[in-house]
Amino acid sequence: MRAMLIVMTPGATDEEIGRVERRIESLGFRAHRLAGSQRTAIGITGNERAVEAAEFEALPGVSHAVPVTRPFHLVSRETHPDDTIIEVAGRRLGGSHFTVIAGPCAVETLEQTLAVARRVQSAGAHVLRGGAWKPRTSPYSFQGLGRDGLKILDRARRETGLPIITEAMDTETVEMVAEYADIIQIGARNMQNYSLLKRVGRTKRPVMLKRGMSATLDELLMSAEYIAAEGNRQILLCERGVRTFSSHARNTLDLAAVPAVQALSHLPIFVDPSHGTGRRDKVLPLARAAAAVGAHGIMVEVHDQPERALSDGPQAIVPDQLESLMRDLRAIAALLDRTL
Amino acid sequence: MRAMLIVMTPGATDEEIGRVERRIESLGFRAHRLAGSQRTAIGITGNERAVEAAEFEALPGVSHAVPVTRPFHLVSRETHPDDTIIEVAGRRLGGSHFTVIAGPCAVETLEQTLAVARRVQSAGAHVLRGGAWKPRTSPYSFQGLGRDGLKILDRARRETGLPIITEAMDTETVEMVAEYADIIQIGARNMQNYSLLKRVGRTKRPVMLKRGMSATLDELLMSAEYIAAEGNRQILLCERGVRTFSSHARNTLDLAAVPAVQALSHLPIFVDPSHGTGRRDKVLPLARAAAAVGAHGIMVEVHDQPERALSDGPQAIVPDQLESLMRDLRAIAALLDRTL
Amino acid sequence: MRAMLIVMTPGATDEEIGRVERRIESLGFRAHRLAGSQRTAIGITGNERAVEAAEFEALPGVSHAVPVTRPFHLVSRETHPDDTIIEVAGRRLGGSHFTVIAGPCAVETLEQTLAVARRVQSAGAHVLRGGAWKPRTSPYSFQGLGRDGLKILDRARRETGLPIITEAMDTETVEMVAEYADIIQIGARNMQNYSLLKRVGRTKRPVMLKRGMSATLDELLMSAEYIAAEGNRQILLCERGVRTFSSHARNTLDLAAVPAVQALSHLPIFVDPSHGTGRRDKVLPLARAAAAVGAHGIMVEVHDQPERALSDGPQAIVPDQLESLMRDLRAIAALLDRTL
Amino acid sequence: MRAMLIVMTPGATDEEIGRVERRIESLGFRAHRLAGSQRTAIGITGNERAVEAAEFEALPGVSHAVPVTRPFHLVSRETHPDDTIIEVAGRRLGGSHFTVIAGPCAVETLEQTLAVARRVQSAGAHVLRGGAWKPRTSPYSFQGLGRDGLKILDRARRETGLPIITEAMDTETVEMVAEYADIIQIGARNMQNYSLLKRVGRTKRPVMLKRGMSATLDELLMSAEYIAAEGNRQILLCERGVRTFSSHARNTLDLAAVPAVQALSHLPIFVDPSHGTGRRDKVLPLARAAAAVGAHGIMVEVHDQPERALSDGPQAIVPDQLESLMRDLRAIAALLDRTL
Repeated sequence: MRAMLIVMTPGATDEEIGRVERRIESLGFRAHRLAGSQRTAIGITGNERAVEAAEFEALPGVSHAVPVTRPFHLVSRETHPDDTIIEVAGRRLGGSHFTVIAGPCAVETLEQTLAVARRVQSAGAHVLRGGAWKPRTSPYSFQGLGRDGLKILDRARRETGLPIITEAMDTETVEMVAEYADIIQIGARNMQNYSLLKRVGRTKRPVMLKRGMSATLDELLMSAEYIAAEGNRQILLCERGVRTFSSHARNTLDLAAVPAVQALSHLPIFVDPSHGTGRRDKVLPLARAAAAVGAHGIMVEVHDQPERALSDGPQAIVPDQLESLMRDLRAIAALLDRTL
Repeated sequence: MRAMLIVMTPGATDEEIGRVERRIESLGFRAHRLAGSQRTAIGITGNERAVEAAEFEALPGVSHAVPVTRPFHLVSRETHPDDTIIEVAGRRLGGSHFTVIAGPCAVETLEQTLAVARRVQSAGAHVLRGGAWKPRTSPYSFQGLGRDGLKILDRARRETGLPIITEAMDTETVEMVAEYADIIQIGARNMQNYSLLKRVGRTKRPVMLKRGMSATLDELLMSAEYIAAEGNRQILLCERGVRTFSSHARNTLDLAAVPAVQALSHLPIFVDPSHGTGRRDKVLPLARAAAAVGAHGIMVEVHDQPERALSDGPQAIVPDQLESLMRDLRAIAALLDRTL
Repeated sequence: MRAMLIVMTPGATDEEIGRVERRIESLGFRAHRLAGSQRTAIGITGNERAVEAAEFEALPGVSHAVPVTRPFHLVSRETHPDDTIIEVAGRRLGGSHFTVIAGPCAVETLEQTLAVARRVQSAGAHVLRGGAWKPRTSPYSFQGLGRDGLKILDRARRETGLPIITEAMDTETVEMVAEYADIIQIGARNMQNYSLLKRVGRTKRPVMLKRGMSATLDELLMSAEYIAAEGNRQILLCERGVRTFSSHARNTLDLAAVPAVQALSHLPIFVDPSHGTGRRDKVLPLARAAAAVGAHGIMVEVHDQPERALSDGPQAIVPDQLESLMRDLRAIAALLDRTL
Repeated sequence: MRAMLIVMTPGATDEEIGRVERRIESLGFRAHRLAGSQRTAIGITGNERAVEAAEFEALPGVSHAVPVTRPFHLVSRETHPDDTIIEVAGRRLGGSHFTVIAGPCAVETLEQTLAVARRVQSAGAHVLRGGAWKPRTSPYSFQGLGRDGLKILDRARRETGLPIITEAMDTETVEMVAEYADIIQIGARNMQNYSLLKRVGRTKRPVMLKRGMSATLDELLMSAEYIAAEGNRQILLCERGVRTFSSHARNTLDLAAVPAVQALSHLPIFVDPSHGTGRRDKVLPLARAAAAVGAHGIMVEVHDQPERALSDGPQAIVPDQLESLMRDLRAIAALLDRTL
């Protein structure tokens, strides 16, 4: 399922080449020698478990190793060619469906949440978002309402009929979140919190896994593989911007990740233009771009009084903006034969 | 026109504060003292020329300096609120116009160039691109046809009526390029080649300035200011991807740069999804996204036989793809009240 | 303790300026107006809790906001000028002491661990490292021995007299790790796992906090502040490389972070050249550079048979290399008046 | 001399595989088929000129291509195992020699230049630096004295006996710079200004090539190859920091580049801690680290009155600091058997 090429130095001896081949075979793989005019390379195939370049680069006579296939398989399109489609409260996510997830960054009060939820529903969005626990850079910032936040979301669901997505921040609270949420979100800072990934892999809820701030797509898919390996295959991925030198937005939204993920994996891929830019004036343009690039949906922060938001107010759009955005998204999705 | 804030350390003495103020005034600016409960800050205003943070950070008692306005002005929207619109061969670029520039990466032969040019024209694109000099990482790669390439482009212009854009790589050839080209392109590697910027600033031709691989928007606009300061205000900017750790595409296309530039500057901003991604399968999705994010146009590589292209073949789309792309771009541009 | 400057747009009205000032005061801070010839800025002082730029950038008439002091305080040198020195098993870490932490990446067997531990001790290193739980990108890689690994480390401590450092990966195992370890390590992937930070903040053990792969120094120090705010002030920081486009090493070791952290904070700062480079042939040069730049110590992986290591073998140095490194470190530390 | 591996998709047909092999052979190379259990790979050898991955990735059935050797050869250690040593005014640079280049950022006046030059000489540094032309981000900043600056440097050389290094910014001035300078510097912004590289490749002067702000080491070495291919093999490389998200210093000094370049190339590699950090308080620690990591020398900015410097004053150290630095460098270089 995976393969690797070991490239020898120009002066590698037969003994050194033989030692590499024996090591490959001692690990249970097959070695294929490729003699060039200047140097020899050795292919490795037949390996079901991961081979690490590092296992060979330390041997004498080895120049470097190049992996030639992907280290994940449950989430790989090579092994599962068809798109994964996830059903949430009667709605289908992924495939030819374009889904809009909207709501406040944090659940602050019942009134605020209901007010926003009603506007989200009347605008035609499909899923309500809202954080009951908030990972904050500063220990002195608002950290979320916890279980009370979950109850408020539950109430908003009953009032609007919208399914809800909310973040689980640690293994202790996964169970509680799974009890209330229709979709469990794993935030960017926790993309490689493997204990948490394994724990949500053992729930029955769909999981949205956000890309870490400096994660490659291989790492994102390996983290999805952690969840899948525990038995939960209902995984949505989400591009939310990466950290670069570029300082005009909070993060650099990497929209080319959308077609790249779609080539590598069968999982749906969403875009979060709110965290991806951090500024309200860029959210609408980038939300339209996300639809145009072919994402399966967007997740966007909406607040009816963003000036008063306790968390990330400046990136929240107002309900009127959501309504106008929905019109644009419908038109763009239609071009790509997606239904909103 | 520009301002700066000098923040003192908590224990800064009156003498240290006074020394900073005197230095500000000795440079011809005005100093404004802002006494806080813990520390003092000093504002600087009235400066027509650039103040550099570094001039003050070396003084005793200074914690750091923060620039509070932009270091460019000819290209700044603060000083020129209206969009710049550039006329090329009777067509208007910028403002509410969406422009498609298409053609081969490099001019290879007369036949190839004419074949592509005719398909570009019949697809409805507006400007023909093609490189007569090619900046190549390796000295052993194809470097372009030089003046013969310009003559071939001229012939393609006469056959199709399309204006042409081509790159000037050094000061020696600017004059020759300006003689043939309707728009002179300055490539990403030359964004801070100041001798070249000054030289094209003294021509009468519109200039497309591509963002450097690790340039901030301030640096891009400062480079545009170099051109403008020499008298040439017909400048188009182009986002073409920045270099990050993200390895699934050749560069990371930074589409949030489009609304960001539009807020900072009155100059048109284009997007190059071909160099921005480096892979054909990502060009169309990102080209649609560029239109959706509100760019004033795209520049895209087209080749009728990309397998045989001497330069960057794998990122070139084929003429049929350009035709289908034009339909999508028209629909998306219409949503934003742009005309194609 | 913290301050911020709100910069208005050139055309901001008196009403807009007044609204910003009222909002500042409604949050319990003091507003200071600074009128320039072209635009007005408003300083904010008196704030004990964090002010976020975003709270103001959404208001009409506001151009942008600039923070002028640091958002952390327990770990800040401004509030605690003297170096923190941490005692571990009779040895002092930080201040004028240079400390060498060495050992295998992962605890694999009792024999391997004892063999390496004896060589680490005889070479003169001060603390033994070894992972009982290993965060691995792939769910199919070796994940560590768990509690059995802790027991092996305990045995190695008794045999050699060296204190031990080992990683806690989740809140469930913190208690168990704290029972065995002299220093608890928090890995780079968990730098913003706030539940875990709070939990180790409630233990009595010194904590080594590694910088995340894309964390700024402000974020590193804010994460340390999470630990300190729970009552645990015995914190060591560790630079271990950041992720950049630069591909010749696994990470880019950011040695300028050492003097930068020392200016901002009173906490000791270590360097990990093994993870920082990922290749044995770069570990020694970068370890020497870490001493020369003024770090308080290094953490380095040592393995007696790196070709057989189950984790990160290619970056482990062999015991003989450690011995020669110790000689170089002693000489360099002496230049900086540090004692090894 | 160079090789590449073409990895086919799992379902690639014999016809697709055959087409790739024919294309390889049509380009004059040799194709080696490597059949795995799941997919086939094809090795390419025998190629004297560069093969580009892109030439194959567009073919049907191809998954991706991996280059397995280096695209440069004149500057490669594989082809020239021994260190290049460059003689400048009787002094040897490279190999076991550690060289200190010091002086002002810009040549401002005769008095300033002579004052600094005398201090540089009495401190024991070996080469005098100073810019006669300055690449500046802003067109409104001080741009250098031009030929008058060269004459001042010449005078300083005659007074002190120190050879001089100064930057050539464009092809027009290379000749003039070569007439005065002992070493011609190519700045980071011009690392891929190929017209300039070719032009200095035709002079007889040693050239110091600085790494671009976002250049990989392969690109740096390819740019050196441009110079070497024109006949000039006297090339010094210089690491001066790369651009990353990390904001505590102006650039991120990538010291692991030193051992990495030394493994790849026979050319000497220097470090510039002044531009690499941008702040005086970090220059000395990073200069020591550069010596400890094994660089062949450093280039450092010195100014006797940094508060008055017209360019980059805050990163210049004062002459007393240079003297104390020289003592540290001598001690560290001795550890590595380098002579200062």
